[in-house]
Amino acid sequence: MADLKQLKEDLVTANRILANQNVLDAFGHVSIRHPDNPQHFLMSRARAPNCVELDDIMEFTLEGKVVGPELGKPYSERFIHCAILEARPDIMSVVHNHSPNVVPFSVLKNQCFCAVMHMAAPIGRDVPNWDIRDKFGDATNLLVTDMETGRDLAKALGSRTVALMRGHGCVVVGRSLREAVFSSIYTEMNAQILYKALVMGEVTDLSDGEIAASTKGRAGFTWERGWENWCRSVNRTYYSQAWDMGPGFSRSDK
Amino acid sequence: MADLKQLKEDLVTANRILANQNVLDAFGHVSIRHPDNPQHFLMSRARAPNCVELDDIMEFTLEGKVVGPELGKPYSERFIHCAILEARPDIMSVVHNHSPNVVPFSVLKNQCFCAVMHMAAPIGRDVPNWDIRDKFGDATNLLVTDMETGRDLAKALGSRTVALMRGHGCVVVGRSLREAVFSSIYTEMNAQILYKALVMGEVTDLSDGEIAASTKGRAGFTWERGWENWCRSVNRTYYSQAWDMGPGFSRSDK
Amino acid sequence: MADLKQLKEDLVTANRILANQNVLDAFGHVSIRHPDNPQHFLMSRARAPNCVELDDIMEFTLEGKVVGPELGKPYSERFIHCAILEARPDIMSVVHNHSPNVVPFSVLKNQCFCAVMHMAAPIGRDVPNWDIRDKFGDATNLLVTDMETGRDLAKALGSRTVALMRGHGCVVVGRSLREAVFSSIYTEMNAQILYKALVMGEVTDLSDGEIAASTKGRAGFTWERGWENWCRSVNRTYYSQAWDMGPGFSRSDK
Amino acid sequence: MADLKQLKEDLVTANRILANQNVLDAFGHVSIRHPDNPQHFLMSRARAPNCVELDDIMEFTLEGKVVGPELGKPYSERFIHCAILEARPDIMSVVHNHSPNVVPFSVLKNQCFCAVMHMAAPIGRDVPNWDIRDKFGDATNLLVTDMETGRDLAKALGSRTVALMRGHGCVVVGRSLREAVFSSIYTEMNAQILYKALVMGEVTDLSDGEIAASTKGRAGFTWERGWENWCRSVNRTYYSQAWDMGPGFSRSDK
Repeated sequence: MADLKQLKEDLVTANRILANQNVLDAFGHVSIRHPDNPQHFLMSRARAPNCVELDDIMEFTLEGKVVGPELGKPYSERFIHCAILEARPDIMSVVHNHSPNVVPFSVLKNQCFCAVMHMAAPIGRDVPNWDIRDKFGDATNLLVTDMETGRDLAKALGSRTVALMRGHGCVVVGRSLREAVFSSIYTEMNAQILYKALVMGEVTDLSDGEIAASTKGRAGFTWERGWENWCRSVNRTYYSQAWDMGPGFSRSDK
Repeated sequence: MADLKQLKEDLVTANRILANQNVLDAFGHVSIRHPDNPQHFLMSRARAPNCVELDDIMEFTLEGKVVGPELGKPYSERFIHCAILEARPDIMSVVHNHSPNVVPFSVLKNQCFCAVMHMAAPIGRDVPNWDIRDKFGDATNLLVTDMETGRDLAKALGSRTVALMRGHGCVVVGRSLREAVFSSIYTEMNAQILYKALVMGEVTDLSDGEIAASTKGRAGFTWERGWENWCRSVNRTYYSQAWDMGPGFSRSDK
Repeated sequence: MADLKQLKEDLVTANRILANQNVLDAFGHVSIRHPDNPQHFLMSRARAPNCVELDDIMEFTLEGKVVGPELGKPYSERFIHCAILEARPDIMSVVHNHSPNVVPFSVLKNQCFCAVMHMAAPIGRDVPNWDIRDKFGDATNLLVTDMETGRDLAKALGSRTVALMRGHGCVVVGRSLREAVFSSIYTEMNAQILYKALVMGEVTDLSDGEIAASTKGRAGFTWERGWENWCRSVNRTYYSQAWDMGPGFSRSDK
Repeated sequence: MADLKQLKEDLVTANRILANQNVLDAFGHVSIRHPDNPQHFLMSRARAPNCVELDDIMEFTLEGKVVGPELGKPYSERFIHCAILEARPDIMSVVHNHSPNVVPFSVLKNQCFCAVMHMAAPIGRDVPNWDIRDKFGDATNLLVTDMETGRDLAKALGSRTVALMRGHGCVVVGRSLREAVFSSIYTEMNAQILYKALVMGEVTDLSDGEIAASTKGRAGFTWERGWENWCRSVNRTYYSQAWDMGPGFSRSDK
């Protein structure tokens, strides 16, 4: 149970970090799979990420039903998290955001978003741009508010890290909460860099081999370095998850 | 009377939020229709939005005359608010700003501002760009300082949410103060996104059906989520207007 | 003497404001003509604007000689201020900066900087881009470190408000310190707006008549509104110079 | 020994400044050659620059071996510093960063980064863009994690101040820590300015003569003015290194 409380604290921290880094504004959300029950996940009630507190964290089934006390209105788009966590047992955490440099790519007729910077390698080269119009017509409110729509988005995402959502934002997934936060921040950074490069000229993106090597070689201490830094920016207590980075750390840790 | 004091506090908060979000700088203003007298409205004396205090809020007629004590010089452009509140009984609040990503669209010969992101759907597809030159010649100071000019702007706005003002800024209206603040912030965000997309390639904007669905489906809790978030950014006490978003909220609230 | 101390405090405030508004970074400077001796002016010793204190303010002749105690090394580019204050008896204050959105215009072969937004009207339509190469060759360090170079720059400026300096920055002048600060901030804002508009399409600039009307019609209370706002941003005490903007203000004040 | 402690404090300050100026984010690093042993250098353990403390500073050989107590995991890319300090006895300090406006230039097929603003003159005109693919193939993780790769990068840098690293970032060197910090900040600023100019039109860069004059003429007090300013931004105590800039400074100091 102590672990669960720490996980909820981490989820609060993740909300604050993503708001502070301008990946989330008053909207968007981040979830984490329940550590003891992979069919459940944790997420805040419907509240702006920068306002989320420990007592806002609720538990949900993968169909979006509230488990236990209903602490407030749930996010209407929780089905994004349900459907992706259902489709991707390898994934522990999902972020949905309106990342301001990513959204412009989502409204381009010839979408061209791809990883150009090594920190963002896990984005890959064939980022899908899911358009709700394709299956649900051109008179929706663009929101993913049921399982059918969520599953269609999850299908577009496939086994990737990021899927854009036309005129809306994107989803970013991670094998841990820290990885999902990290990838969200560097997806936004990659978008800012790619945008500037594209308007100046022809661009060299990362090769498949570079993407594979960068993604495979990345270990817990990479997420950890970012996490410590961002905790400081939002005045949240940092604790080391993967290892002790300071005096006395164990060399066998990865 | 307690309500009126709360409304004035909200108006102060709105000024601070819009300054903090870079929608207003040292100039621009926000008004709210008087709750007991639709022929009057409330607005600060001529002061930078981030400096506005409760004691700066004055009452005006729809012709721009001060009602009650004249606490200071009124904004010379109060006629923007007069004329729009006169023409639009459905509207409770008006923002006039020099939104930095919106102004560039106002000086384009082929203006192309439209909603590309769902949060900004109420902007619509045919945003007018009111040019003071068309009726008042090319030797004005561009300011709207009388009813005739204000009414011409209100006519250009028509039944829409936003009208650009060439070389100047824009007006944004709302059915509530919170909606006007919300729409002002997402008009700026939409401009930033559309700008980046346009310089990269051909853009997909929101369809009429998407705009209608997004606008119609939006309820009080959407404005509320933004408002709580932005109150925190400017250290203003948040109180829930439409409902209680926390423990014990009533499901029948909208 | 009390006035002189207040003027020096204002000069400190101006330095802090321009740093806070990103018009000055660690470099650049702002001067004010001595109120009792138009052949002298006041400016900080060579120090980053955000660090300037009351005890850093020195007095100079229009040839750049220190008058009274030499409190520290003078700015090597003080000759910009000397030459412009010499050539322009109508001007009380000069700002030299590396305004980040203005510098890009200074390195364009077809420079096209002009006022597109009413707040920036005094910039005008034919902003010169002074290139030190034209008279002093292409092996200078680009700095204006003597009267000859300063006078050449002042000549390029002529009777205008702003002159760009190729690969360097710009100079902005005002009939008062507050006006010079105000015009510096809106020159930067105008540059940001014009840049975005130019990369999207063809641009409508302000007409000569609009520039004349906007410039002529602007009175002390306009500078005052900005000054109060910016003082708050840098935690400097605001006092009203031109009039009392609050309760009891005199209508006859301008 | 007192000097060494001060140098380590300076190194902490440099880390904080570069993070605060958005030159370093959670990654990147800055080194300084050991004052008593040019074959050794000082650098933090692997930690985000904004979190670096005095007790994180470790000593390394030019082959990247830890000297003395291993206070934590070293940066895996310390070989960038090793190889450049080995190849460049004239250099005392190296910064490796992912400077957000510089990276776009590193992914352009026709790289065109050069100095356009006098503050950034030491960048020069023929900035190399080192591509790890050229010698190490297109399936690396882009990181410089051994001496061979580091030496190849150092060779590309040659006698210059800056080398870009494709899809990764850049290296910036200085004859002192303050100069390396200064040049890093103005490399980022130059990139931002050049980017905006390039998308507007044809650009005038600095001439060889201007670069030589600007670089040669720059003395300690230039770095000092920036350093005092940036110390204040990160709440680090400033002390004057090259001279006393205030009352009583010695004119013979440079």
